[in-house]
Amino acid sequence: MHGVAAPRCGPFASTSATDMRVLTLAGGTGAAKLIRGLATCMPQRDLTVIGNTGDDTEVWGLRVSPDLDTVMYALAGMLDVERGWGLAGETFNCLAAMATHGADTWFNLGDRDLATHLTRTRALDDGQSLATVTARLAGNLGVAACILPMSDEPVRTMIRIPGGRLTFQEYFVREKALVEVVGVDYEGAATARPAPGVIEAIRTADVIVVCPSNPVTSVGPILAVPGIVEALRSTAAPVVGVSPIVGGAAVSGPAAALMRVRGLAVSPLGVAAAYAPWLRRLLIDERDQACAPELARAGVEADPADIIMTTRAHETALARRILELSAERRAR
Amino acid sequence: MHGVAAPRCGPFASTSATDMRVLTLAGGTGAAKLIRGLATCMPQRDLTVIGNTGDDTEVWGLRVSPDLDTVMYALAGMLDVERGWGLAGETFNCLAAMATHGADTWFNLGDRDLATHLTRTRALDDGQSLATVTARLAGNLGVAACILPMSDEPVRTMIRIPGGRLTFQEYFVREKALVEVVGVDYEGAATARPAPGVIEAIRTADVIVVCPSNPVTSVGPILAVPGIVEALRSTAAPVVGVSPIVGGAAVSGPAAALMRVRGLAVSPLGVAAAYAPWLRRLLIDERDQACAPELARAGVEADPADIIMTTRAHETALARRILELSAERRAR
Repeated sequence: MHGVAAPRCGPFASTSATDMRVLTLAGGTGAAKLIRGLATCMPQRDLTVIGNTGDDTEVWGLRVSPDLDTVMYALAGMLDVERGWGLAGETFNCLAAMATHGADTWFNLGDRDLATHLTRTRALDDGQSLATVTARLAGNLGVAACILPMSDEPVRTMIRIPGGRLTFQEYFVREKALVEVVGVDYEGAATARPAPGVIEAIRTADVIVVCPSNPVTSVGPILAVPGIVEALRSTAAPVVGVSPIVGGAAVSGPAAALMRVRGLAVSPLGVAAAYAPWLRRLLIDERDQACAPELARAGVEADPADIIMTTRAHETALARRILELSAERRAR
Repeated sequence: MHGVAAPRCGPFASTSATDMRVLTLAGGTGAAKLIRGLATCMPQRDLTVIGNTGDDTEVWGLRVSPDLDTVMYALAGMLDVERGWGLAGETFNCLAAMATHGADTWFNLGDRDLATHLTRTRALDDGQSLATVTARLAGNLGVAACILPMSDEPVRTMIRIPGGRLTFQEYFVREKALVEVVGVDYEGAATARPAPGVIEAIRTADVIVVCPSNPVTSVGPILAVPGIVEALRSTAAPVVGVSPIVGGAAVSGPAAALMRVRGLAVSPLGVAAAYAPWLRRLLIDERDQACAPELARAGVEADPADIIMTTRAHETALARRILELSAERRAR
């Protein structure tokens, strides 16, 4: 099912860099953009994504894995670019009919997107693993990259608010991240095991890329699965991050508030702290250059770059920059 | 949820006939047409439908009740009139995406129709009865008539073919009723109980109408549920049928072949035989008038009528004729 090779392109087509096995740790939209960029610079088959499943939820009885799907749709060239989630050209006729039946409709499931969730739900109900059905779904959409859930077992990112708890989707989509947060828990993480292939992918990667995702609720749940941080600490491969924080604020989403709750500075320093001691390199915006010396003292090499991906060209350029830096590192 | 009254219309608005409680035994398309006709001649709240669930099936992990839904959509004014099933103005975007994932797509589930099945599946999975969720779905669509499944327990009409068995939908939709049939079984019927309200509805009805549905696979499964035939035999209300057979052939669908397999003549006589000894009156096409004497000998009064419903006006006229005949009968 992973037999579809992406076209090679750019300077890597004729260099050893195209043979690099690139592993990414990924959340949703920001990760999808960077991964789409990577896929334009290297063969998809050399790309592995470890996706966050802490955001997974159940909608209308269907099992939804928003981050895995966002990456999958991006790699399939089907992501709605403007919204940053769901399928381009999507319709929402089932959603409208669900409203008639009194169902919650704050989580927007499109008609074609439903096929993903129906297929996943049926496979999981039949006893297949999330990793198995994720590979099948991606293969069916022509994705040649390997998308791995961080774990086949349920891990749920729970947002503690004054007087209660919300799932991540309740907090992010339903409440639009406007409520006060007092804590974040990764429910189920302590007893979850990495999905088959996750540890091996970390061990055999030539480059590991931490996508510009929310360190607390996108990458944090991945790191909370026992064994993953240990593998990241012991890899000899360059581990390169892209800061999701620029000029003291998140490029998108509620990362700033959630980082504060976790005691992390809302700056590249906080990002580096979240990924200490295994992050080796961090691409930061030029306006955050002042962080470079302190990052260096923390053992993280700072690389100023154009990290805000507003166009496909930005995505490709940022991906190419990461691969170039990694190739330099390997060449040394 | 059943508070929406249909507008009164026609001659019954000023006669006692509007107070008649009308019970119908119903299959799919033919039944839906007649019931839609009845609903234009009487308040929906005085109308109860006992629907066939022998056709129920599971599609993509969803619980589908085609006959209940066809009647519900017809009463809600939402049925696709040309197709005779599903919703008018429906889209099939999820279906197309399911094909990408290798799912069976011979059973056409539309995007808005999916909301019905998602709601039903979730309710059944939560332990609600089919009768409860059917009432809720119909109420949500503004249907004031009472739609009762024949049973809350699974009954499956199985079509025996040489060397195997098919569910009714496999036979009818996937195989287009083109395979040889050697028998029909109502699996689960022997141990099924009538859904709550079914027996009471038969006992308290002022008129019972057997819709022009397939006697073997639409009305047959209803009659196979223990207790229903007994209640029909003991009612004092007029029991009026509409023949689904005209001029030696079914008006639509595979009724002729299935009646033959069951040893029933493909004529109003076979229809009467399927409903003996409780059917009292049968509306037949004028070209079948020759059957009248033999029907009379079987205790069934034949009424020639325009029973082929090709327009809404036909539906209303046929419904009005049934109500008039029943009112006469009551007045005697």
